[in-house]
Order: sequence, then structure tokens, then C-alpha cells
Amino acid sequence: MNAEIIAIGSELLTPYRLDTNSLWLTDELNKIGIRVIHKAVVGDSPGEMRSSFHHALTRADLIIASGGLGPTDDDRTRETVSELLGRKLRLEEAIVREIQERFRRFARTMPEINKRQAMVPEGATVLPNPRGTAPALWLEEDGHIIVLLPGVPHELKSIFESEVRPRLARISGDERLFTRDLRTTGLGESDVETRVRPLYQLYPDTETTILASPTGTQLHPRTWSRDASQAEKLLDEITDRMALALGEHLYSTDGEALEEVVARILNENRATVAVAESCTGGMLAERLTNVPGSSSYFLGGVICYSNDLKTTLVGVPQSLIESKGAVSSEVALALADGIRKRTGATLGVGVTGVAGPGGGTPEKPVGLVHIGLADEHGPRERAYRFPGDRERIRQFASQSALDAVRRYYLFPAAARA
Amino acid sequence: MNAEIIAIGSELLTPYRLDTNSLWLTDELNKIGIRVIHKAVVGDSPGEMRSSFHHALTRADLIIASGGLGPTDDDRTRETVSELLGRKLRLEEAIVREIQERFRRFARTMPEINKRQAMVPEGATVLPNPRGTAPALWLEEDGHIIVLLPGVPHELKSIFESEVRPRLARISGDERLFTRDLRTTGLGESDVETRVRPLYQLYPDTETTILASPTGTQLHPRTWSRDASQAEKLLDEITDRMALALGEHLYSTDGEALEEVVARILNENRATVAVAESCTGGMLAERLTNVPGSSSYFLGGVICYSNDLKTTLVGVPQSLIESKGAVSSEVALALADGIRKRTGATLGVGVTGVAGPGGGTPEKPVGLVHIGLADEHGPRERAYRFPGDRERIRQFASQSALDAVRRYYLFPAAARA
Repeated sequence: MNAEIIAIGSELLTPYRLDTNSLWLTDELNKIGIRVIHKAVVGDSPGEMRSSFHHALTRADLIIASGGLGPTDDDRTRETVSELLGRKLRLEEAIVREIQERFRRFARTMPEINKRQAMVPEGATVLPNPRGTAPALWLEEDGHIIVLLPGVPHELKSIFESEVRPRLARISGDERLFTRDLRTTGLGESDVETRVRPLYQLYPDTETTILASPTGTQLHPRTWSRDASQAEKLLDEITDRMALALGEHLYSTDGEALEEVVARILNENRATVAVAESCTGGMLAERLTNVPGSSSYFLGGVICYSNDLKTTLVGVPQSLIESKGAVSSEVALALADGIRKRTGATLGVGVTGVAGPGGGTPEKPVGLVHIGLADEHGPRERAYRFPGDRERIRQFASQSALDAVRRYYLFPAAARA
Repeated sequence: MNAEIIAIGSELLTPYRLDTNSLWLTDELNKIGIRVIHKAVVGDSPGEMRSSFHHALTRADLIIASGGLGPTDDDRTRETVSELLGRKLRLEEAIVREIQERFRRFARTMPEINKRQAMVPEGATVLPNPRGTAPALWLEEDGHIIVLLPGVPHELKSIFESEVRPRLARISGDERLFTRDLRTTGLGESDVETRVRPLYQLYPDTETTILASPTGTQLHPRTWSRDASQAEKLLDEITDRMALALGEHLYSTDGEALEEVVARILNENRATVAVAESCTGGMLAERLTNVPGSSSYFLGGVICYSNDLKTTLVGVPQSLIESKGAVSSEVALALADGIRKRTGATLGVGVTGVAGPGGGTPEKPVGLVHIGLADEHGPRERAYRFPGDRERIRQFASQSALDAVRRYYLFPAAARA
């Protein structure tokens, strides 16, 4: 069974509002074995609304629409759908009484316009709305199901849970969606694709989406199945093979963020970390402390944006900054080593680079970042050249600094060589 | 002229991802007089994609699609649109060379699959992509315009700005959407609504959307007009009245972020700032350094997550932490004063609080945050109680710390009282 979600409301066609109900609805539908194949956002105009419903009926078994059931003139979902299906609307006195009752409970009188919410298309099932005045409607037409829900999120959710989900679960079949969420860093989208593509032919029953994000590339293998244990086994197997193909670049198979992986590794090793950040300006620390309980492994750090602070707070010799420049291997090494010594952390991380847009030179262009990592044996360092704007360069730099900590523990020989 | 936006990618039909490109695109289109009448999200399947484009051609003058131009097997936008329009695809050697050149710049070899990105439908105009490998495509068919853009946001934006906007601006009508973007902090959505609602009746030709965000409430008054100076005058007038109603809570009337406002104020006052952060863990510094050129006013700071670092790096007396607790007015004052003295900044900001989910007590619950601000006359402090989860509490805290700096300069008497 497949579904289309239509969100109705002119405010959803402005630059300021997204239809977020569809994420929740998709999750609920997937759990009962219904695939979402299309989503649409349409304004209050009956013509455009009719066109959306008309096209949805050509491709989807189930159409779930949200919005446009309010009492005002620009709420026209009921009328438009009735007209499209050639059904008459009639006033249901029982619903009028319920709406009046609801107003009475809040010590108010029902405005006359709310009567519109008691109009029901012929043959429709009325789904009561315990949290608002607009009841939802369930219609069937030529083997398609159309469900009209209010757009207010808590009303939509409550009607879906109590009235829509049980009805759909009875008819949706017992196929379910099973997924994995693999995360990599240091590989581009096409590199990842090249590595895992040979697996696609081996597993024709799974589909894999590859997704580039600012901090790395994600893979989402998924399969529909009636047999949970068989599906999980299949996904375990394809995940293992993908892990081999992706090697050290894979940091998570369950959607864990890199900072969560690093948190786990540091806790397992009873290790602590401290940071000295220049170009990332706090982003590395912010990510490390984004994980609840981060005080067990994160001591703190210094944002040494000015050169003076590199010297006074982290102990980088002023002469070193003068001779090598603030963005240099030597200063990255001194930052990592200095912050480790000043804080007593197991590991010190130092980041210095040119985030741009200004400050680049031919020798030290925008995007050049040095990342140092120090342990009790001293510091080591690696230089990177990141593409993109200020925001992206800072994201790449914080991701690479976190990854340096992960690799330190996972590949000790390589990291310490 | 009206437009439909189609977002392509199976990941956008999962419960995990929303199409956010369409918000930015809508804003850009509105500015050049193009209304968005419909948005669609469709997966990678050629059949469903074809259906979307086919239906869009029945209702929209302009179709802007994003995504599915990557090098991998599930990137099928080029092929599907070519087939729908009955156009042949041919390999453009010039594009292959550009892609190869791009890989070379990053010291890599172009994987063979990237050649797919050099396939161009007959009659299409190729729009170069300076920030990625997939060029965009511009097609015309029976009076409709179809623009295919990559889905990666920074690539989409850069091509739209340099190639698409100028072309569209020449042919769209002369009605334009005029808007303002008012930003407030410290007021909830319904407080804002109550304050500005009386203005709606006075200005029937403007519409205002009120939007709650993690850091404050935004207001977007807007009006369509053929007369720029009249529209700007109208919006200036309504903005002035809204400013009166919102008072000191309004920090921007043109969508400037609070950190940009603070940056401007600090530069105007030739002042510098340094921070000592505990619960925000670097988020405050990250936001201050997110503004290009931030080294002119931001010296740096300390993330003193452990109590030891509060003492060793910022000079908070250990006895004070022991007697008052790390989360206390006294420690916030000492952090602000200490970091100011250690760095020589004009202003020092200290933040300490309970971000949760653990660590709360009846006296010091999750959400309690103390923010200190020190100048040459000494420090002052304010306690807040923020709602929400760890992420929201940290966002509110960093926002309030920035706002403390803004108020210090804008309302000196109140701030220094």
C-alpha cells in the first residue's frame, strides 16, 4: 500500500513555514507498512487543491491531507474534495451539537461560521476530534482512501492515533520497512558510491540511499519485509559488507553522530580531552558538549582567537607565532600540547586555520586548517585543505578534529606513527 | 508568473529529512515577483518523478527542481526529464573536462561515474556550478521553463544567484513581494501576537506571519506591489508601529541575527569581548565567531567545563565554587570578571547553568542559567529559568548572553543599574 501526503495552507507556500506534520505521518505510516511515494504542499485556492487531489488519485492508494478544515472562508478542503468526487455536502446536526458543546465547555458561544465544520460529504465517515472543533473525514473512492485531517499538529496526531491508524493497520498488509543508518567521514558521495555499488546487485531486495551532509556521507540501506528477523539478518549482512568496503571511514552503523562515537570511545578508555580552538571558534567544544554527560570526558578548553591568548592561555611561544605564523603546523602542535599540559587531559586537540572569507594568502589560502593531537608522548599534526565557505570550513574542521580522536583510539599504530 | 518547486530524493520521503531548499527558493522567487503555487517532494523512481513533472507542467509557468543530478545510479532527474520532453541526452566533453579539473584541484582523479553529470538534454542551457561537479540545466518547453538544480544547498544557492535569478528577473512581471523580517527575543509567540494584532486592521494590504524559533519570535509583514517606493513606505510605517509595540525586545528589522547585531554594536563602540562558558560549552563563542571579521571584537575565551578549569584558567576561587556551587550567581560574576581581566577585553561574559538532562536538583533545576557581564566597573549578573531540552536550554542561554551585550550598549542606564 502506498500513500501521498498533501499539506494544505497558503502559509506553507511562504519562505517561513515548512510542513512538518508529514515527517510524523511518514514515520507512523511506515511503521504499519505503508510507503509514502509523494508529498505535496498546496495553497488555499480550490483550483490548485483540486489539481493536487486529482493527481494524487492517479498514483496513490491512500491520500492523507492536512489543513483547510477550519471555520473560515479560506478553509475549503471539504468543499473541494466533495466537488472533485461528485458528492453532496450535508449538514450533520450531531456534529453541530458537539461543536456547540465544545464552545460551551470554554464558556463561549459557537460563532455561526463554525457550522461549516459540520458539513459532511455523502458516504464519508466522520472521525471525532477530541482536541478541536474540526472533525476529520474518511472517504473511499474507486479503491482509494482519502483521509482529511486538521492541520494543527496535536489535533492531527490525536485523531490519527485514535481513529486513522487502527483502520489503516487492519488493511495495510503485514509488510514493514526496516532500515540502517551508516555514517562516514572523509569520503565524498561518489567515492562512497564507487565502493558500495558492487553490493547493490548482490542484494536486489534492498535499496540504499546515499546522502551527502556537511560533515560526511551517509548510507541508508532499507528493505520491506513481512519477516522481521529475516529483514534484520539481511540488513546486518549488507551492513557488514558495506563496513568492509568503507573501512576506517565508517564511524557509525546506527545513525550515531561522530561526537557521540567519540564520547563513547573516550569513556571506554577512561580518557579525557581538552581543546584549543582558533578558526573553529568554539564549534569543536560545542559539539563535544552537545552529548549529555559530556563532563565525564570533556574538561574544557580555550578559544584563542587572538594571538595573545594563544600565548597567555595556552602557552604557545610568541616567537613561534611570529616566525611560523598563527596558522602553521608548529602552532597546531603547540596548541595541542599546551592545552593538554594546562588542563591535565589525556588528549589535547589544537585547531588553527583560515576559515575566511578574508585572511587567505597564496601560501595559506582560505580552507587551510592544521589539526594537532597530543598525548603523553607529545603532539602530532595534520594539514587539511577544506572547500566551501566559512561555515562549511568550520564544520569540516570540527569533524576532522573529532575524527582524529576516534582514529587515535581505533587505529593506535597509524595514529601514533 | 507562478512557480512549482519539486524536491527530488527518496531520503525526503523518509521521516528524517525535510526539503528546506524550497524555503530559500520561495524567498528568492517572491523577491522577483514570482509566486510559488505548489511544492512537491518525490522519490528517485523515474515513474513517480515523471508524474510530478507532468502534472507541474499543467499548472506552473516555471518549474524549479532540486536534486537527483549526482553521479550515482539513483540520480535520475536528467534522464527522466529528457525522456518526458522527448529530448536526447548527449555527453558534453567540455563539462567532463571541467569536472576532471575540479577533481584535480583537490588532488583527486575523477571517478568514471561522474561522467553522467556531463550528460545534457538537447536544447538545454548548461548553467555552470562553481561549487560542485553537477552543472544545472535550463530547459524551455511550450512556454514553460524548467530549471534543474543540484540538491546540495550551497551549490543550489550559488547557481541560483549567479545564473537563474538574473534570467528570471528579466522575464517575470513587475509585481514584487516586499517584506520585512523583524526579530525579537524574550517574548513568546502569543505575547507577540497580542502586542501587534491591533495593527492588522489598520493595514489590510499587508499580511503578517508570526514564527516561533528556538531563540525568539520573528514577524514577517509582507505586501505585493508594482510600486516599490509605496510598498517600502507602507512596510516602514507598519515596522515602526510594530517596533513601538515590541519595545526593547526587538533587535532587528532586517533579519539580522543577534550575533551580527552584537558584532556591529561592539565594532561601533570599539569594544572587545571575551567569554567564559560552562553549560553552553562553546556555543556562545561559536556564534560570536560565526560572523566574518569577528577577530576585530572577539578575543577568545575559556570553556571551563570542569571546576578545576574555572579556577586555573579563569581564576574563580576554589572556595567560592565549594561554598556557592558551580551554578550560582557568585560564580557567574567571577567568570565574567575573571575572563575580562585575563584577556584584557572591554567586556567579559560568564555563563554557568544546568543544561540537563542530568544534574538538576530542587534548588538548582535543569534550565537554571546564570549569566554574568563584567566591565571596568565590575560584574553584574542575572538568573534565567529556560524551558526545553539540553539543546534548547543551550540555545536560550547563548541568545540571552548575546542579548546582555546588546542591552549593555543600547540601554546603558538599565544594564549598569
